[in-house]
Amino acid sequence: MNIGLVGLGKMGFNLGLNLLKHEHTVFATDVNEEATSKFKDAGGNSFGTLEELVAAMPKPRIIWLMVPAGDITKTTIEQLKGLLEAGDILIDGGNSHYKEAMRISEELKQSGIFFMDCGTSGGTSGALEGACMMIGGEEEAFQTIQPIIKDICVEDGYLYAGKSGSGHFLKMIHNGIEYGMMQAIAEGFEVLEKSPFDYDYENVAKMWNHGSVIRSWLMELTQNAFSKDPKLDQLKGIMHSSGEGKWTVETALELQAPVPVTSLALMMRYRSLEEDTFTGKVVAALRNEFGGHAVEKK
Amino acid sequence: MNIGLVGLGKMGFNLGLNLLKHEHTVFATDVNEEATSKFKDAGGNSFGTLEELVAAMPKPRIIWLMVPAGDITKTTIEQLKGLLEAGDILIDGGNSHYKEAMRISEELKQSGIFFMDCGTSGGTSGALEGACMMIGGEEEAFQTIQPIIKDICVEDGYLYAGKSGSGHFLKMIHNGIEYGMMQAIAEGFEVLEKSPFDYDYENVAKMWNHGSVIRSWLMELTQNAFSKDPKLDQLKGIMHSSGEGKWTVETALELQAPVPVTSLALMMRYRSLEEDTFTGKVVAALRNEFGGHAVEKK
Repeated sequence: MNIGLVGLGKMGFNLGLNLLKHEHTVFATDVNEEATSKFKDAGGNSFGTLEELVAAMPKPRIIWLMVPAGDITKTTIEQLKGLLEAGDILIDGGNSHYKEAMRISEELKQSGIFFMDCGTSGGTSGALEGACMMIGGEEEAFQTIQPIIKDICVEDGYLYAGKSGSGHFLKMIHNGIEYGMMQAIAEGFEVLEKSPFDYDYENVAKMWNHGSVIRSWLMELTQNAFSKDPKLDQLKGIMHSSGEGKWTVETALELQAPVPVTSLALMMRYRSLEEDTFTGKVVAALRNEFGGHAVEKK
Repeated sequence: MNIGLVGLGKMGFNLGLNLLKHEHTVFATDVNEEATSKFKDAGGNSFGTLEELVAAMPKPRIIWLMVPAGDITKTTIEQLKGLLEAGDILIDGGNSHYKEAMRISEELKQSGIFFMDCGTSGGTSGALEGACMMIGGEEEAFQTIQPIIKDICVEDGYLYAGKSGSGHFLKMIHNGIEYGMMQAIAEGFEVLEKSPFDYDYENVAKMWNHGSVIRSWLMELTQNAFSKDPKLDQLKGIMHSSGEGKWTVETALELQAPVPVTSLALMMRYRSLEEDTFTGKVVAALRNEFGGHAVEKK
């Protein structure tokens, strides 16, 4: 099938290669000229602008957006809104907020444009070799794009989740679960590191990946990480986050859903960003105030 | 090889079948006569008492203990201590505390008996078809039992972890990680259940098991559970625990290792055991005291 691909970053480029491998015709663009040129070399059609891309595509068009969530996604959709026509399908494959997907789908519906929110999991290797996708939007439009989705996902690795927003909502929750699972795994190794025993963490993770209850892709990645750096000596324990964990907790607050472990996994990420904490200073000062307990000064 | 098996419960019986399948000669006993009789039918040698079992075995003996952790394990080891001889190897395959393993191995060493602490993961299906084992104790004794371990575990699914206690310690941490992972997965579905969307949880879990970052054996079990009962309507949300999560948190306290998510996963299990909480009553009373906020009376 013909498919437009907007965004040739780490995820988009690999998704493009995946589409080409499955003999789809890909019309791609990116602000980065090196990426578009590399994609052309790989067998894709590259365009310098959105206008050129849209003009070159046969109608009805299917356009896949794989640009960073937030302002860039918003601006790109705004631009495409002026270029697309009734019957076209626009897919947002990024980690956008589900409420934004609900709003945009309503807006584009007025021009007869279908908007699909598609959460993508599996990392950059998944994008290339078989991803996992959760898709929301009109079922009619889903039927149209299903052959593409089927090709670029692993077997059974996609789900039509329902009305607009349900795909991005599911991806948000997926990432929330990921936060908790990662923190749980990491805390286990934290105790091992302080234990009276001398474990080889790569071998521990490898053994746990073979037949244990906690075997998982994240444990396989843990094994990989320890194989490169047995005690992770080369890293600082700073845990950045890109927003979906925060959205999960915000959504849980809105829905009054108790999610203590997910919330705390997020808070531990925030804690890791601080070298020292104001909380720590306040508690130290209070212990000193009431009990004369020693404080450590700068 | 010849191996004694003490305990033919859910785990022990399956482990026995697994040993027989690999053409080991199994000398088994259990207080439950039905189990010993069934095991005999399956091709094993069954004995009514520990004494008979020990007497029947060629020396040096290898005896696998698969009885409930705690008092039963302790009493059984006490009994075996009087029956075994220098050079024999006693393996505790249950979820005993690592400190108990350290103590017993020291005690048995004085009689020349090797004690191995072996954490077993993979559930009852793993015990039958291929388990995951983490083993502590004298390396010399490990070399002797390795051919057996290799046969009954999945490929790469065992680890000689080091000195006495290191096997049970690793199993304890494995279970601690399991608590956090399970709570994280469950909280994700909690938010889905309160969301404005209408998800089929079995399909969600199935899709997440194919190519997503959170694919895992626990997510496969989640898929199984929802396939039997789409909204788990037949269950109450009471989460029992059998001790290893508590030990993980106790050990973390002892080692001053911060494990907030593991601790909270354990606390949420305790919370689930209470229909109503005294905490709830205290907070409700206080809100009423200072602000006249309404309370709900029995």
